Amino acid sequence: MRSPDELRAHVESYLDELAFTPELGRLEAAMRYPIESGGKRVRPVICLAVGEAAGAVVEHCLPAAAAVELVHTFSLVHDDLPALDDDDERRGRAAAHVAFGEGTALLAGDALLAEAFRLALSYPTPMVGRELAQATLAMIGGQYRDVTGDTDDLAALHRLKTGALFSVSVGVALWVAEVPEGEQRPWRAFGDELGLLFQIVDDVLDGDGYAASHGAERARELAEQAAVRARARLDAIAADTAVLAEIVDDLAVRVA
Amino acid sequence: MRSPDELRAHVESYLDELAFTPELGRLEAAMRYPIESGGKRVRPVICLAVGEAAGAVVEHCLPAAAAVELVHTFSLVHDDLPALDDDDERRGRAAAHVAFGEGTALLAGDALLAEAFRLALSYPTPMVGRELAQATLAMIGGQYRDVTGDTDDLAALHRLKTGALFSVSVGVALWVAEVPEGEQRPWRAFGDELGLLFQIVDDVLDGDGYAASHGAERARELAEQAAVRARARLDAIAADTAVLAEIVDDLAVRVA
Repeated sequence: MRSPDELRAHVESYLDELAFTPELGRLEAAMRYPIESGGKRVRPVICLAVGEAAGAVVEHCLPAAAAVELVHTFSLVHDDLPALDDDDERRGRAAAHVAFGEGTALLAGDALLAEAFRLALSYPTPMVGRELAQATLAMIGGQYRDVTGDTDDLAALHRLKTGALFSVSVGVALWVAEVPEGEQRPWRAFGDELGLLFQIVDDVLDGDGYAASHGAERARELAEQAAVRARARLDAIAADTAVLAEIVDDLAVRVA
Repeated sequence: MRSPDELRAHVESYLDELAFTPELGRLEAAMRYPIESGGKRVRPVICLAVGEAAGAVVEHCLPAAAAVELVHTFSLVHDDLPALDDDDERRGRAAAHVAFGEGTALLAGDALLAEAFRLALSYPTPMVGRELAQATLAMIGGQYRDVTGDTDDLAALHRLKTGALFSVSVGVALWVAEVPEGEQRPWRAFGDELGLLFQIVDDVLDGDGYAASHGAERARELAEQAAVRARARLDAIAADTAVLAEIVDDLAVRVA
């Protein structure tokens, strides 16, 4: 079993060497830029860790893991555009539309989404792509609620906007590992708790969402409860889930 | 064998009744709007006609045909945005971003693309989705060349920007009809000529592209030559391709 840091290094080198469709030409630079801006690669690391725990070879999970990361990257590039969140910075660098212009950033986002499906469709089963499509649609629905101010049901909003891509990180790994559908439920329940944990901690760090509606103290308690439930879900799985437990611990105490 | 008009009616009613992912919520209105703006449904009709000629049940081809139309619609919604072509009108109506706002149009385009993959992934084979991903990436590459003024090689630009979605209309139908890969070549050659025919006639009608570079007279000759080659490709296929020949004739003489 590889540690989260080892898995992260795998993700980084796979993304570094990822060949895009040649017809994209020079648009590739505007696609690589937001990918290289990094981030913690939480979603693809979860995907690889679930895949390995469920019996898959890590290398075989890499296209699915990268597909999830590209959907995440696409959503950041489009969300940063002036028509949506209008953010000029992302992870301490100029946002893609500032660095390359709005039109190029728009097309780069589109191309990142299409490349994600190309990767998801490299498997013989259509299930990896199916899960990715559903999660992408849920995420877009969440972003639409967010920008239109339809944020009364915070839990529902987060389940869509953040939770869907965490769930799919687990889901696609299960298909790659060929876990029968009837045995997937405990894994997926784990993924749901993990997404909630990530979101609440995110809100505590940013001082919004759960932290704003429940107070920072109470939000921390809710995060700890989600972490406890996530660990309990792992205990119910008949596999070596030590690396996944480590990921839960890391997410619960992260400070950035 | 159903006529092109009958196939078009199938496409229209399928698109009318198409259920989108519920999580999209009210974004659905901004997705239905550009679909309802119509157009000739050339690509999905070609898909159904190829599918039926190759031995598939028309109804079974409908999700693939609709997927191609949704990718086309996504591209129009994004291309019309101020960051790209900045067109306020489309098919005599307000463009999506004028009717719904830029942010909503951006997300509606994203969701149309993801819904296209959801439909393409409803088949047991991943090949339908694989072709769609490749064609979408080629199309985006073409649009990028177009907006950045990299238009020296007009034939290459058109092959990407228009041709890719015509080729894929044929390609996905072949997979739905379970035509073995080794027997697909003549069908695909037909699709390539059809895309070229459509593009040249389009340019003659708009007075740009081939009409601008070669003159209207010469462009008309090139279109007629493409139509002749398309019919010759059909003659080389051991199937009843009468409906496809009718589509070639319609495309060659269209005036709108």
